[in-house]
Amino acid sequence: MDNKIILDGQKVSTHIREELKPRIEALKANGVVPSLVTILVGDDPSSATYVKMKGNACEKLGIKSQKIHLPKETTTEELLHTINELNNDTSVHGILLQHPVPSQIDERKAFEAIALEKDVDGVTSWGYGQTALGFGLYPSCTPAAILNIIDFYNIQLQGKHAVVVGRSPILGKPVSALLLNRNATVTTCHSYTNNLPELIKQADIVVAAVGKPEFIKGDWLKEGAVVLDAGYNPGNVGDVEYSSCYEKASAITPVPGGVGPVTISMLLKHTVDAAERTLN
Amino acid sequence: MDNKIILDGQKVSTHIREELKPRIEALKANGVVPSLVTILVGDDPSSATYVKMKGNACEKLGIKSQKIHLPKETTTEELLHTINELNNDTSVHGILLQHPVPSQIDERKAFEAIALEKDVDGVTSWGYGQTALGFGLYPSCTPAAILNIIDFYNIQLQGKHAVVVGRSPILGKPVSALLLNRNATVTTCHSYTNNLPELIKQADIVVAAVGKPEFIKGDWLKEGAVVLDAGYNPGNVGDVEYSSCYEKASAITPVPGGVGPVTISMLLKHTVDAAERTLN
Repeated sequence: MDNKIILDGQKVSTHIREELKPRIEALKANGVVPSLVTILVGDDPSSATYVKMKGNACEKLGIKSQKIHLPKETTTEELLHTINELNNDTSVHGILLQHPVPSQIDERKAFEAIALEKDVDGVTSWGYGQTALGFGLYPSCTPAAILNIIDFYNIQLQGKHAVVVGRSPILGKPVSALLLNRNATVTTCHSYTNNLPELIKQADIVVAAVGKPEFIKGDWLKEGAVVLDAGYNPGNVGDVEYSSCYEKASAITPVPGGVGPVTISMLLKHTVDAAERTLN
Repeated sequence: MDNKIILDGQKVSTHIREELKPRIEALKANGVVPSLVTILVGDDPSSATYVKMKGNACEKLGIKSQKIHLPKETTTEELLHTINELNNDTSVHGILLQHPVPSQIDERKAFEAIALEKDVDGVTSWGYGQTALGFGLYPSCTPAAILNIIDFYNIQLQGKHAVVVGRSPILGKPVSALLLNRNATVTTCHSYTNNLPELIKQADIVVAAVGKPEFIKGDWLKEGAVVLDAGYNPGNVGDVEYSSCYEKASAITPVPGGVGPVTISMLLKHTVDAAERTLN
């Protein structure tokens, strides 16, 4: 008997988006159209694709989506000026600066300029700090997606050992914080970690957020581990070697169709949350 | 041959304070007297002792120390009013709200009201977020003290496995973040952790920040572990059982005379840092 669970991101995503529909209707009845602005700097083709996907997801649900496309030679000051205008525009509820920006721009400074109440992508240090201390409005979307998948499938976290591979500001660090706040014991690993397979072998829950294709192997896993793969690499593969990890895991996210779609749903949800907050 | 190292907080503390002296002189030559205001609400005797110790340490070094003592029935609004006045007072460089405050006060709201540039005790979520993302000005003082002790004794962190026991906003969480940013692999444990002795057995570095007297036992340690005890409990004991942990550790902080004095030195250093920033 195979009671292995494929953690179906499309299914979770559909559930979240269905719940948003009446909320968006109610907002519109109150004269508020939830609105997300995405800023794309330069011509990176995959960034352009991501921005387009996010825009389409918004439109489909009735969230207003506006794309601001700045030239690749934009300066930090110019980008800050754009962000400040959006901060002051009361018709805009969420601001997303698509990562990465061209190298001449101080990306951290640009992220930090986003008003906390419009930081629906969870990139500011203030938002991160609030999330880590347990009262953040908008955690980064991929970490939030991972928690939503865990909850949708009723996976218990309390007292479990979660091993997070990766420590980026919008993924490894905030997902570690969210898991810790849900009473998991959390180990955060990275490129300097010496004994990664040995640590992963202890994990009840593995979060792969390392950005290396098929990096995590099935024989590193404990039998029955839950595997959440936040990676998305060329060739449509995640950060875990799916076939071997599938064999060992009790539950696993596929790539594509796992964490990815839920991440976009989180962005939509946060934008609706932000629009609702303007009514209070 | 016993080459065990007692991590002498007094020695580290003296070193830090000696380095501050010429900086304080230079500030005064520029017409700036570094100034710390501590706010004590209510009559908790150990809080009063802590505030007095901090004040004395300031005065001894030539840092101006002012104590604001508010009655135990102070409301959140009244406390916020006091904090806002201090935020706006350009002669004040650092603000410390002594924890804990009486139960009718929203402590988190009060912490959050402290201006980031005066948050020398590292209690705001914004300061925490900046610290965790690697560019914070003033990490919480006890975590900063632990890192200073580690550096003073040339203990290597990169690639080491650090196990932090405790996850409070001003201790367990920020020390985990600081260790992670220094390329340690970090496991954060807490009251829901199931197999604490087994996890500690793997640690190259153990940080005890749990607030339970003599909780961590020597036979939990790996031979040669480095033990940093941030606990201070009634009876002058830390969170580790010193005699048994001393036997197994390669280096250990005593209690008292370990992390404690360096914590106060961090507060002094941050206050001087903050005063210097007003000159730029």
